[in-house]
Amino acid sequence: MAVNLSFNQNLLPVAGIRLATLNAGIRYKGRDDLLVIELAEGSSCAAVFTRNAFCAAPVTVSRSHLASANPRYLLVNAGNANAGTGEPGLAAAKACCVALAEAGRCEPEQILPFSTGVIGQQLPVEKVVAALPNALANLKEDNWLAAAKAIMTTDTIGKAMSKQITVGGQQVTITGIAKGAGMIHPNMATMLSYIATDAQVDPNLLQSILNEVVEETFNCITIDGDTSTNDSLVLAATGQSGAVIDASNCADFQQAVQEVCMYLAQAIVRDGEGATKFISIIVEGAKDRAEARVIGNTVALSPLVKTAMFASDPNWGRILAAVGRSQIDQLDVNAVTLWLGDTLLIEKGQPVSSYREELGQVEMKRDEINVRIQMGRGSASATTWTCDFSYDYVKINAEYRS
Amino acid sequence: MAVNLSFNQNLLPVAGIRLATLNAGIRYKGRDDLLVIELAEGSSCAAVFTRNAFCAAPVTVSRSHLASANPRYLLVNAGNANAGTGEPGLAAAKACCVALAEAGRCEPEQILPFSTGVIGQQLPVEKVVAALPNALANLKEDNWLAAAKAIMTTDTIGKAMSKQITVGGQQVTITGIAKGAGMIHPNMATMLSYIATDAQVDPNLLQSILNEVVEETFNCITIDGDTSTNDSLVLAATGQSGAVIDASNCADFQQAVQEVCMYLAQAIVRDGEGATKFISIIVEGAKDRAEARVIGNTVALSPLVKTAMFASDPNWGRILAAVGRSQIDQLDVNAVTLWLGDTLLIEKGQPVSSYREELGQVEMKRDEINVRIQMGRGSASATTWTCDFSYDYVKINAEYRS
Repeated sequence: MAVNLSFNQNLLPVAGIRLATLNAGIRYKGRDDLLVIELAEGSSCAAVFTRNAFCAAPVTVSRSHLASANPRYLLVNAGNANAGTGEPGLAAAKACCVALAEAGRCEPEQILPFSTGVIGQQLPVEKVVAALPNALANLKEDNWLAAAKAIMTTDTIGKAMSKQITVGGQQVTITGIAKGAGMIHPNMATMLSYIATDAQVDPNLLQSILNEVVEETFNCITIDGDTSTNDSLVLAATGQSGAVIDASNCADFQQAVQEVCMYLAQAIVRDGEGATKFISIIVEGAKDRAEARVIGNTVALSPLVKTAMFASDPNWGRILAAVGRSQIDQLDVNAVTLWLGDTLLIEKGQPVSSYREELGQVEMKRDEINVRIQMGRGSASATTWTCDFSYDYVKINAEYRS
Repeated sequence: MAVNLSFNQNLLPVAGIRLATLNAGIRYKGRDDLLVIELAEGSSCAAVFTRNAFCAAPVTVSRSHLASANPRYLLVNAGNANAGTGEPGLAAAKACCVALAEAGRCEPEQILPFSTGVIGQQLPVEKVVAALPNALANLKEDNWLAAAKAIMTTDTIGKAMSKQITVGGQQVTITGIAKGAGMIHPNMATMLSYIATDAQVDPNLLQSILNEVVEETFNCITIDGDTSTNDSLVLAATGQSGAVIDASNCADFQQAVQEVCMYLAQAIVRDGEGATKFISIIVEGAKDRAEARVIGNTVALSPLVKTAMFASDPNWGRILAAVGRSQIDQLDVNAVTLWLGDTLLIEKGQPVSSYREELGQVEMKRDEINVRIQMGRGSASATTWTCDFSYDYVKINAEYRS
């Protein structure tokens, strides 16, 4: 059960974007597992990909295609990651692009392929190719909901959001979907996300906006520290609303994109494998943001902290121990102050006499928990979002392929 | 159930070392929870401690005492870590030293205190102090077995080993005990270990031997990446065998100490919380040893790798993904070769055509699994020992304080 997350059904179409989903029989029965997103001619595209050196074949192909042409189609399959598949996997990803380019009358370089699912199995190219004509015949502007469902793997719930703003008197729509529940860690995660807007944005500006937004959103979540081979996030701008975004007026637009990304990134944590709690690790008073992030990540990834959260056990010693092993230069434990929710536990390294176990218990029993750590060595801060570590995390990942 | 580990009952006394255990009622009922180790006058002592900045009060006190005097007594309690206890915790550790020094007729600085157990609760000093006279009255040379049991917390089995070598015609005995099952990670772990020998070794040489040995043994194990607040390892040399170890003849001695430490370190992994498998991550062909260690640790700590191990699932993609996210400069995935046991899976980045899932399954079903990763970028190697991640890990850590 995802933590305080429902499937957002109010998705707005984005002019210039059409989507189709269907069951290509790649792995799943009785649900769609293939998604085609068509971008209108003249759309801009920005993307970020996994930094994992073992990136999947589709990531390699998408990176290369994006660098050489304007994308017209995004081709996404769930159930098979096409990762760890060597040269045959690369050939498979390219073959899918060639087939879709032929059917869609564009160049193969204008196709960006994406895959998510089991690693190390060859992609059944023939099944993907066979499904393409049917997909192209069924492209629709209002298919975002189906798209959010078609890309799910261990997700228990679809993740999607729309937002509208007005730019220069013109209405701009932003709609995004995402999938991901495990192998989630900054830079990035076993996640795919597709976001589109009908604003017109120069590709360089679009990429720079995306980079800044990702740093504040998708790169601040972690479920298990395992970055994936397939993470990809695409932001497309069709320009069909007539609204033009440039350096002079991009602040509101960037803010809106960030809201969509924040919702989607936190949705991934709320639906984290086995999650029963949504946890914010707020690190303040660090020397710089990088330091705050390292501390936040160390606490967020500690199996001992995460199992204590699962048990609603205010075992704050585990939080301090995780802070203490963050690789922070000359950490002065007598400057560290710690809160669970609004309850002060440790003040400048010393246990607070007013603290009683019952107070911590109240905070830990919530399904949304704030851990606030004031380091007392600077003014930088960062928040990391994570979830707890439950029996179900082990179960889901032990049985994933069975 | 610990993986292929039984409680080694053949422990040899070490001349000059006497031990006493008893139930001081600190936390546990029906078992001993206090250990006093007496070192004969003139013994040398070397030690390594946790590098966690939030180190426990006894670690602070032991470090300081060891720097200023020759230890006569080690005082160990289980059930309460005396960590995160601030100034009162420091005062408690010192009060225990004062009481034992008085009863044992030495200086307080000659006492090294150690604690292991729950973090964040004040140590019941009065219970420790009340037990000391009885402890001193019951010191015995052949109490090593009882000592190994008295320091256990979530351990399911005592960990101990003796070894004898001959130096210059004289027999030298080395006996060691250790505890630890969770919060285990290099530098170091929620572990305590006490090793003694009747050889005579200069304290500086003893410390240098210990440092080198720890680097190859205790610093190569990881269970959950959580380094502890309390880790301490003491190596004492009483000199009572008459054998003198110096720089010219220390190789055999160091090798013997290393065998004892290796046994104890691996015993901790075999008894890792919830462990069902003992896993060796062997990284070869790295640029340097540090790089090999980083890769080995990343794989060993991956929750996805560890849950796959628990499930006996040859999901090797997770191993590659973990290698790929190791922070290694310019990792060339097309140089990486991977074996599970003797089964070759990936050769220079490409899946091997001879590999079939059944072969991987055979390897993964073993209770001792070797993962061998040849990086193809140098000649350095390192092995990391770890265990799998099971339902019981979550259970043990969720219920630890209940």
